[in-house]
Amino acid sequence: MNHFEYKNPTKIIFGQDKITELAKEIPAKAKVLILYGGGSIKSNGIYDQVKTALADFNVMEFGGIPPNPEYAVLMDALDFIKSNEINFLLAVGGGSVIDGTKFLAAAAYHEGETPWDILTSRKPVMKAMPFASVLTLPATGSEMNSGAVVTRNETREKLAMGGPALFPQFSILDPQVIQSIPERQIANGLADAFTHVLEQYLTYPTDVLLQDRFAESILQTLIEVAPKILKDPSDYKAASNFMWSCTMALNGLISQGVPSDWAVHAMGHELTALFGIDHARTLAIIAPSHYKYNMGSKKEKLAQYAERVFNISDGSIDEKALAGIDATESFFHSLGIQTKLSEYTQDYKGTSELISERFTERGWMGIGERGSLSPGDVAKIVEMAY
Amino acid sequence: MNHFEYKNPTKIIFGQDKITELAKEIPAKAKVLILYGGGSIKSNGIYDQVKTALADFNVMEFGGIPPNPEYAVLMDALDFIKSNEINFLLAVGGGSVIDGTKFLAAAAYHEGETPWDILTSRKPVMKAMPFASVLTLPATGSEMNSGAVVTRNETREKLAMGGPALFPQFSILDPQVIQSIPERQIANGLADAFTHVLEQYLTYPTDVLLQDRFAESILQTLIEVAPKILKDPSDYKAASNFMWSCTMALNGLISQGVPSDWAVHAMGHELTALFGIDHARTLAIIAPSHYKYNMGSKKEKLAQYAERVFNISDGSIDEKALAGIDATESFFHSLGIQTKLSEYTQDYKGTSELISERFTERGWMGIGERGSLSPGDVAKIVEMAY
Repeated sequence: MNHFEYKNPTKIIFGQDKITELAKEIPAKAKVLILYGGGSIKSNGIYDQVKTALADFNVMEFGGIPPNPEYAVLMDALDFIKSNEINFLLAVGGGSVIDGTKFLAAAAYHEGETPWDILTSRKPVMKAMPFASVLTLPATGSEMNSGAVVTRNETREKLAMGGPALFPQFSILDPQVIQSIPERQIANGLADAFTHVLEQYLTYPTDVLLQDRFAESILQTLIEVAPKILKDPSDYKAASNFMWSCTMALNGLISQGVPSDWAVHAMGHELTALFGIDHARTLAIIAPSHYKYNMGSKKEKLAQYAERVFNISDGSIDEKALAGIDATESFFHSLGIQTKLSEYTQDYKGTSELISERFTERGWMGIGERGSLSPGDVAKIVEMAY
Repeated sequence: MNHFEYKNPTKIIFGQDKITELAKEIPAKAKVLILYGGGSIKSNGIYDQVKTALADFNVMEFGGIPPNPEYAVLMDALDFIKSNEINFLLAVGGGSVIDGTKFLAAAAYHEGETPWDILTSRKPVMKAMPFASVLTLPATGSEMNSGAVVTRNETREKLAMGGPALFPQFSILDPQVIQSIPERQIANGLADAFTHVLEQYLTYPTDVLLQDRFAESILQTLIEVAPKILKDPSDYKAASNFMWSCTMALNGLISQGVPSDWAVHAMGHELTALFGIDHARTLAIIAPSHYKYNMGSKKEKLAQYAERVFNISDGSIDEKALAGIDATESFFHSLGIQTKLSEYTQDYKGTSELISERFTERGWMGIGERGSLSPGDVAKIVEMAY
């Protein structure tokens, strides 16, 4: 087991009707900015629940944070925060709103020239305005981790940031919110969380027995609840397990002491930046090709995954590994998610070279758990995913 | 899934030679008291590592905290803390030393008449002196939770306390410390952690799929590493998984949203108080009888446990449940731990009535996950364990 440091101070408040507890958690004299996305929280009642819970607070709001939170919009929000002397941010939304809020929390206290530096410098964020979240869309785990991803349409870039100051003070998880999520987004959440686990698990064999089993536990739970939650999003049992699995998939626990891959995300982010494909679907496009291309170095873990998660016990290591990849692709299909780029766009030719060039330009000479995948490998993987 | 609140702010620093990082974690001007037990840290080199790491600090020490930390000894330590104006406590030891330190952290800030009130009042501890731990004996999980148990020989009592102020600021887990632990104590650690999981898992079926699988993951890992670590405590792979499994077994994660039993501990504590039997061994004495006695209400979970943890797939629910109990007893035997009270003392007659009376005197009219086990049931379970 590699050495590690683990601390996750986010308080999780989980259960039905827990949004009512907001007022207990926010400092009494805070000047609160509620941040949200396209306004679905106004039609599904969550906005009203939040406003009611915060009736005694000094509250302002900023809506319209788009999926893949856009830098230009966030810069408007930053102006708003500064000119209104906001001192507590409350994200009410999914991963995009929470990630955007993390960027704002860091940007509000940033001392450099431009907040864009936070994303390009890759330095851990050590100071940030206090913030919290009410999760409305389980998927990214952002509600209990210290990372965020921000998109800049101007340059078609999507970059990551993080640091110890970026854990939410608290996050409220009420599985009832899932009732009003469109099926497409529930499918995305399932695929996103599933792939988060794969990125931290499908590497090479290590001696980290417990984290492997925890990873497999999350995958098995997502597989078990996926058809139920897609059939009936008001199924509280399925909804609560789905929601908690998404959080546990990326709150740092299963990554302690193990190698991580994250090449699927690195390539997937490019597909979102280039084509606007939903984040989760880009992962489903890249993952099968990535695992096939890297069979040589990943087959032991792929075989373990096939055995323990999909009960595939027959065959050689190679056969089990391939069956595991097939089962992964079938799982994505069972969610109604296609796994080839050509199923999303007819304009895909040249994508592999383009992404490879962008990696080279950014100086990303090696990705994956060993840092061994070159821009040339990336081109081949993306082409396999056409 | 029951609603829950989960926050665990303890920082874990895990890996080889991490004791050297102590100085980075303790406030520079702290007046530190190092607390330890019988002095084994002086022979195995851990004491020297700690003193070297804290060379630049104002450090005092208090040794001699006994297994099942004794109230009278702790009261001496409390006097020492007050008269020397200590403001940071560093436990260097196993669960007993860390639990004792938690009591002292609470007692140092306690405003009531006598610190014993902390244990009898059952109120959550909201204020405590900052403290941390260097774990030398994996078993209790005390290094990453907010609970403690203190013994008072004068009244032969063993009582629990806890509260949000009782999470260690940080805990250093170096699996190399396991090399110098006597086999008997390693076996105890394995049995203790295993039973901690059972107490949070072997109740009745719930809809909490993920926590069930996490619990099973810890049990499977302990079963996998037990023979290896007993054979060779310098096996770093086995040691690190053993150490981390013990922490995860009782850091609050697997208990979120699920019912908990803890009747095995309630009865086991009495056997330690009455006979001085090692804590872990009292659990191994009580557990099989407890599960057999409560087959009616626990058989579904026992059967799931048998299937998923021990791969017992044949037979009816009752047969699988019983096979699961037998497998549990066999696991304890594989650790060299006997599972009958008469194997520890010839003086066991009347124990069942005595424990039952003590429960009644304390007003404990019902224990277990449903609070349905009466002092009469307790008498029967203890008698089954003779």
